[in-house]
Amino acid sequence: MTDQPSFDSDFRDRLDQLFAWRRDVRRFDTRALDEATIPALLTTACTAPSVGLSQPWRLVRVRDAARRASVRSIFERCNAQALALQPTERAGLYARLKLSGLNEAPEHIAVFVDPATELGGGLGRATMPETIGYSAVLAIHTLWLAATAQGIGVGWVSILHPDEVAQALDVPAGWRLVAYLCIGYPLEHSDTPELERAGWERRVPPADFVLER
Amino acid sequence: MTDQPSFDSDFRDRLDQLFAWRRDVRRFDTRALDEATIPALLTTACTAPSVGLSQPWRLVRVRDAARRASVRSIFERCNAQALALQPTERAGLYARLKLSGLNEAPEHIAVFVDPATELGGGLGRATMPETIGYSAVLAIHTLWLAATAQGIGVGWVSILHPDEVAQALDVPAGWRLVAYLCIGYPLEHSDTPELERAGWERRVPPADFVLER
Repeated sequence: MTDQPSFDSDFRDRLDQLFAWRRDVRRFDTRALDEATIPALLTTACTAPSVGLSQPWRLVRVRDAARRASVRSIFERCNAQALALQPTERAGLYARLKLSGLNEAPEHIAVFVDPATELGGGLGRATMPETIGYSAVLAIHTLWLAATAQGIGVGWVSILHPDEVAQALDVPAGWRLVAYLCIGYPLEHSDTPELERAGWERRVPPADFVLER
Repeated sequence: MTDQPSFDSDFRDRLDQLFAWRRDVRRFDTRALDEATIPALLTTACTAPSVGLSQPWRLVRVRDAARRASVRSIFERCNAQALALQPTERAGLYARLKLSGLNEAPEHIAVFVDPATELGGGLGRATMPETIGYSAVLAIHTLWLAATAQGIGVGWVSILHPDEVAQALDVPAGWRLVAYLCIGYPLEHSDTPELERAGWERRVPPADFVLER
C-alpha cells in the first residue's frame, strides 16, 4: 500500500504533547483496567520495528500473587543493595525516592527477549547482537506511548536481578529480561520527570548532547 | 503541572496509524531536508525516558563526506561477511535485499551512549547496566515516530562494527554505538515491513508472543 495517511500539524502538536507528558510512573491507583486494555496494548507493542523482523519480544502478563510477591522481594533486595552503594551525601535522598509501583499497579508485564529465535534469520545481528534487546525496547516504548494516550501510566522497573526474575516467572530457558513494567492509572500527571521533581537529577539541554562530524 | 492534555479517540486512532505506517526505510529520495528539521528531531528525541534520568544519548550528525564514506565501507565489509554466513538457500535472497540507505539518505545520525556519564548517579543501572543502551533506543524511537509524522523516513543500520564506526567518527573514548540512522524522504510508503514484502520474514500474530504467569 502506498497511500500513507497524512499526519497534520494538529496531530504532530499533540504527538509532541504525548512525548512531553509521558512519564515513568511509580504512583498508581489500584483500580483495575478494563479487561480488553492489556491485550490491546500488547498487540500495539508488536507493531514496533525489530532487527531483521525477528520480533524477539516475549510478553509475560504476571497475575499470580505469589509470583508478584517474588518479584517484589527481588526488587526490595536489589534496592537495599543499591542504597548501600550510594555515596553518603545522596543516600538520604535515594532512600526517600519511590522507585516502583509494584505494590499498587494493577497490571504487571515482564518483557523478555528470546535471543535464540530463528525469526529474522539473524539478519542485522551479527556485529551488534545487542539489537535483539533493543527490539524489545522499541516494543516497550510503543506500548508506553499508546498507554499514555489512554491516560494509563507505565513504570519501568530495572532494579532487579534479571535471572532471578526469569526464575520466579518460570519462563523458557534462555529468555532474558529486558524490563518489568507496572501498568495502571497514575495518581498524578506531570510534564516533569519524577526524579527531577524529587531533586535527584535535572534534564540537560538537548544541544549539549549533539556533535557534528 | 497536573493538567495533562487529554488525548481523544481521534488522536489515538491516528497514533495507531502512525505505529502501523512507521517503516524502517532504506530507499530514500536524495532531496535535502529543511535546515531546521534535524535539530528539532534531535530535541524531540531527548524527551525520551532514560534510566535514572541519565540522558546517556550522544547524537552525532555526520556531514563530512569522508567520514560518511568510511561508514559506508564498514557497512559494505560487514554486509559481505554477513552474506557469506547465510545458508545456501537464503544467500540469493539476502544478496537481493537492500539493507541500507547510506548512499542516498541526505542525513546521517550516529547514536552513541556514554556509559560513564555521571548523570543519574547510576540509579537503576546496578543490576541491569544494559539499560543505558536501552535509554538511547527510547530516544531513537521517539525521533523515528516524530519523523514519520512529518513524512520523513528513518532507517536503522546495524550491520556495522561499532568500534570501527566510533573510530571513523572520532568520538570521545568510551562512547558506544547504539545505532546509525539514515534519514530523509522515503521513496515509498507502506504499512508492511520491507523484509516481509521481500519474502525474508513474516510478522507473527502478537498473541503468539504472550504468556500468562
